[in-house]
Amino acid sequence: MSDLNALLKRADDNLPSSLDKLFDLLRIPSISTDPAYKKDCTAAANWLVDELKTLGFMATAHKTKGHPIIVATSENAPENAPHVLFYGHYDVQPVDPLNLWDDEPFDPKIKDMGQGRKIITGRGSSDDKGQLMTFLQACRAYREEEGELPLKITIMFEGEEESGSPSLPAFLEEHGDLVKADFALVCDTGMWDRETPAIAATLRGLVGDEVVITAADRDLHSGFFGGAAANPIHILADILAGLHDENGRVTLPGFYDGVEETPEDVKKTWEALGETDERFLGEIGLSVPAGEKGYSALELTWARPTAEVNGVAGGYTGDGFKTVIAAQASAKVSFRLVGKQDPAKIRENFRAYVQSKLPDDCKVDFHPHGGSPAIQLDYNAPFLKKAQGALSDEWPKPAVVIGMGGSIPIVGDFQSKLGMDSLLVGFGLNDDRIHSPNEKYEMNSFHKGIRSWIRIMNALAK
Amino acid sequence: MSDLNALLKRADDNLPSSLDKLFDLLRIPSISTDPAYKKDCTAAANWLVDELKTLGFMATAHKTKGHPIIVATSENAPENAPHVLFYGHYDVQPVDPLNLWDDEPFDPKIKDMGQGRKIITGRGSSDDKGQLMTFLQACRAYREEEGELPLKITIMFEGEEESGSPSLPAFLEEHGDLVKADFALVCDTGMWDRETPAIAATLRGLVGDEVVITAADRDLHSGFFGGAAANPIHILADILAGLHDENGRVTLPGFYDGVEETPEDVKKTWEALGETDERFLGEIGLSVPAGEKGYSALELTWARPTAEVNGVAGGYTGDGFKTVIAAQASAKVSFRLVGKQDPAKIRENFRAYVQSKLPDDCKVDFHPHGGSPAIQLDYNAPFLKKAQGALSDEWPKPAVVIGMGGSIPIVGDFQSKLGMDSLLVGFGLNDDRIHSPNEKYEMNSFHKGIRSWIRIMNALAK
Repeated sequence: MSDLNALLKRADDNLPSSLDKLFDLLRIPSISTDPAYKKDCTAAANWLVDELKTLGFMATAHKTKGHPIIVATSENAPENAPHVLFYGHYDVQPVDPLNLWDDEPFDPKIKDMGQGRKIITGRGSSDDKGQLMTFLQACRAYREEEGELPLKITIMFEGEEESGSPSLPAFLEEHGDLVKADFALVCDTGMWDRETPAIAATLRGLVGDEVVITAADRDLHSGFFGGAAANPIHILADILAGLHDENGRVTLPGFYDGVEETPEDVKKTWEALGETDERFLGEIGLSVPAGEKGYSALELTWARPTAEVNGVAGGYTGDGFKTVIAAQASAKVSFRLVGKQDPAKIRENFRAYVQSKLPDDCKVDFHPHGGSPAIQLDYNAPFLKKAQGALSDEWPKPAVVIGMGGSIPIVGDFQSKLGMDSLLVGFGLNDDRIHSPNEKYEMNSFHKGIRSWIRIMNALAK
Repeated sequence: MSDLNALLKRADDNLPSSLDKLFDLLRIPSISTDPAYKKDCTAAANWLVDELKTLGFMATAHKTKGHPIIVATSENAPENAPHVLFYGHYDVQPVDPLNLWDDEPFDPKIKDMGQGRKIITGRGSSDDKGQLMTFLQACRAYREEEGELPLKITIMFEGEEESGSPSLPAFLEEHGDLVKADFALVCDTGMWDRETPAIAATLRGLVGDEVVITAADRDLHSGFFGGAAANPIHILADILAGLHDENGRVTLPGFYDGVEETPEDVKKTWEALGETDERFLGEIGLSVPAGEKGYSALELTWARPTAEVNGVAGGYTGDGFKTVIAAQASAKVSFRLVGKQDPAKIRENFRAYVQSKLPDDCKVDFHPHGGSPAIQLDYNAPFLKKAQGALSDEWPKPAVVIGMGGSIPIVGDFQSKLGMDSLLVGFGLNDDRIHSPNEKYEMNSFHKGIRSWIRIMNALAK
């Protein structure tokens, strides 16, 4: 039986050196989507391998077509202890537009915000380096205090989560036995609020496509050709505008196949959280709910599918004006999926829709991105209940079981390829500005996050 | 009475040195819309002032808020000779995308295309440095051969034509007396084809607006906020898609006020040119006429108004994918005007339309560009008839009077501010790729262009 209080005190005493380690990792600009940072991604992987070894893990960085996947194991645990797989990612999002950052994205700092609140600044501080380090530092407390971990633990860190995890499915096919465990612990999600920890029981899936439309064989002068030549930006605008009807519903045929209304009892739990559209949108400077009519902002982001244009480009976009008719225009479009929506079918229907809107003399190229179904956990799974209790012991308010709007494709892969459920626990906050300038992580998230994992491991070991 | 043959021979003999001068000017990257090239615009202006002085003109580069406007005069002409103003512009379009150029845009070359055809490569070779130099070299032949010019000539070169001529209206208000003449000669248009010179009797006007839509106060993660938060790219796509109806007509209220159908006799002349939609569009790799249904490509570009999106940008547009909901999205939209369409009214109606499509919690900023009405010359003006005869003498086929899809705002300003008509003669070809990579000017356009101006000046002097 572990001495929980001694473990928690050890984590408290270790906090300064735990922060030093986090900062070392945050200083590595491991932007996975941009080939210019390939070496940095490798450096982040190597740093983690070294760190895992100091924690007594056998750790290897496996080569992939993209960035390395780290697998680490520790068998040194009590007889009959459950076997868990901890998953995190060491890659981060791009940092543009750089001019909107108050501090250097890759030179992390601790900032005192007053009233006892401190934050850790920098790209990846929350998503996902800060989060994954909470688990490693919990392992460290166990090692230092008790000499062994309370569970059989395998760790997998990937470096392509922010760019759609292209190498992961093949890796799991080939090396699934290396990482198969009783269930997975995934630390890439958030708290409900500053005082209330959360376990995510649903995750939206994702399918993305880049659409490139080509009209004329060159950029044209809009005076000479305007009115007679096809303008690919017009065609693209028509396509994008036609994706939603006047009620905000996605118009693709069959899009809502497999989408079920949220059960009334689940909706009641969510309503009890007291969230309002005003507060949800007010936090980001908005007030009018967009998207499907008749749903709360919470339900729209947790339980409804979407079509979103993530980027659009065409023609002259620099300073000043250029009266050009572009040869090409492009858009990056993604769909968030729920329930049993089929990513392959949705991609197929989207492409057919785009083709149907295309004049005969224009052409379109597609570049796929991602493709993962939604997932839905059993609300009554024992590991979920144990974790819920452990989190409730650490934080001021009891842990809640919620939905998640984001996609973590790996969780779908764990389920479909390895038959493994995932416990989704994380300590991010909505205002962490992940994927945006001025990303931060609360010092409280980091510190109590470490303590939370100690409590969860302790509970799972029983 | 001038010895026309001696003048033409002089121009022929001068051709090599005329090309040297043109190349000097083409080497100056005078991109007016990009502030990084401000010094180069000034350099091009200074080069022209020096050149004009060697041709016996009194020449001055007048400072403006933007790039200099050059005014040059030569009073040394026969008694009672008409007074003409020659207009051109020394600025050029940006050169992006640079990777599509076969040769350096600012290192002009002569390329032998076989069968006696040669071209001059480089940005500005056609639009408008090559064109304006045809007139200067015609003046040179007169100076060298006869010691004086056959007409009273004022020359005005501006450096902001490619960025909407922002300084020109104020300059004309203040210094209109410096440039007022009996009529203007404007060399910024094209031939009908390689053998048929053309005089443009109609020019479309232009009004442009940049639209910047702001939704949330930051870029958002599309997982956390997708489905509930307004996406400015969706709003923009709706706005742009709604600009045209299913028949390709512009939907703005009152847009067609002042637009008249082309008279049947004019349409017959145009039909006699033998142009087909297939050929017109085939040249740029297209085959399906876009825009208003029921009009030929020629009529669509010469006599019908348009709404065109010249650029669109929003969200993540780099390599890879970023599942972001952008805070902002923007588009550059321009309208080509005909007949008596009112630029101010159209801008106003466009902005009202955009506002009407905007959710209450989003905002829009507008940045105006240009704003010039269409112009329409008298088909029977004497100067037009004389020029038509002179051009017909130089080229294999008789000169035709056509419409022009492009806008030359200065021609509208000459008419509205100085009561001065303009003779629009130029030697560009449709495949000159002006405003695009690999701009070129035919050696034939340059050489016979010089000869054409000699003939036109000779005819106008009679």
